[in-house]
Amino acid sequence: MKSLAIFIFPGIQTLDLFGPIEMLGAFPDHMQLTLVAETAAPVTTRHGQRIVPDATIHDGTAYDMLLIPGGDSAIDAGHRAPVIDWLSSTVQTADTVMTVCTGSILLAMTGALDGVRATTNKQDFRGTIHHGPNVDWVPKARWVKDGKFYTSSGVSAGIDMSLGVIADLITPDAAEEQAIGTEYEWHRNASWDPFAERCGLV
Amino acid sequence: MKSLAIFIFPGIQTLDLFGPIEMLGAFPDHMQLTLVAETAAPVTTRHGQRIVPDATIHDGTAYDMLLIPGGDSAIDAGHRAPVIDWLSSTVQTADTVMTVCTGSILLAMTGALDGVRATTNKQDFRGTIHHGPNVDWVPKARWVKDGKFYTSSGVSAGIDMSLGVIADLITPDAAEEQAIGTEYEWHRNASWDPFAERCGLV
Repeated sequence: MKSLAIFIFPGIQTLDLFGPIEMLGAFPDHMQLTLVAETAAPVTTRHGQRIVPDATIHDGTAYDMLLIPGGDSAIDAGHRAPVIDWLSSTVQTADTVMTVCTGSILLAMTGALDGVRATTNKQDFRGTIHHGPNVDWVPKARWVKDGKFYTSSGVSAGIDMSLGVIADLITPDAAEEQAIGTEYEWHRNASWDPFAERCGLV
Repeated sequence: MKSLAIFIFPGIQTLDLFGPIEMLGAFPDHMQLTLVAETAAPVTTRHGQRIVPDATIHDGTAYDMLLIPGGDSAIDAGHRAPVIDWLSSTVQTADTVMTVCTGSILLAMTGALDGVRATTNKQDFRGTIHHGPNVDWVPKARWVKDGKFYTSSGVSAGIDMSLGVIADLITPDAAEEQAIGTEYEWHRNASWDPFAERCGLV
């Protein structure tokens, strides 16, 4: 059983958060999910829903896995020192670190992705990657795995990446069955990315 | 501006809820979203996250639109009289009623779908449609529109249906742009449904 910290912050994009939760949360024998926020108060999403955190960043950093969803406000979160401190410490000891969309930018702001191959969303790609100048950014990818880091493209790409993580950490069959159970057409190929071309990145 | 009530209940499936919210919530000039629960206490999802309701079923039924997500526990909710009363009243005056997965079964339990063409998830199709014996159930469909009712297949199908609703209520271009913005490969064809065959329904 692994502990999975999911960092949530005001303005978080809902599908960045709950796409991966739908997939990863289906394996409670393998992963225990904990929503971690800056304070214990409910966190309001980009779309106005209020989510109750399970823990705060002041409760510690001892998690086996970390997921950082995105949202336009992820970059604001990256300008708050306690957030960067907690993310940096948690990343150091986690064996698996996942990001969705601008969650990749937030992780890059910690320096943890320096020299790592990574991707982020394609709409704001050119306008945001300067926050991680030493990252080996990949302009065309649904998601990228480099060592313990799984970084995904925009919003819905987090679902595909999560199924990829399930395939790697549990079994490929478990990922296939989960996709079918949620009637989701999984993009199994991590390099599938029609949005890169649409956004003029390739 | 339309008011959209989203019914939430203990055990609700997270992607059934937040897939549509990601899409419909992107149009705040057209729709105002309200999470409605049986009480004001946070509602715990199937995957353990706690969501704070915006209103309760005791606050009234005056909404222009209604969304009913699913989850295995949707049928339990349908056995609680205040839920059926609130849903029945809300459906009567709403101009657009949407369901995802077993949310269709819950709606069927109110009788509102009697004589209406509708679909639900494919994995549990045969085991659940007896709760709506007078519904014209469609075994192969990503989603079905019949009058003011939009009913969708399992879990992730709610995303496709929501984009269909945006196309109908706002514009097709708005739906296309929203899909691109969330890097989502929209299944535009409501009759696309490989899961019906996989589940032996056709």
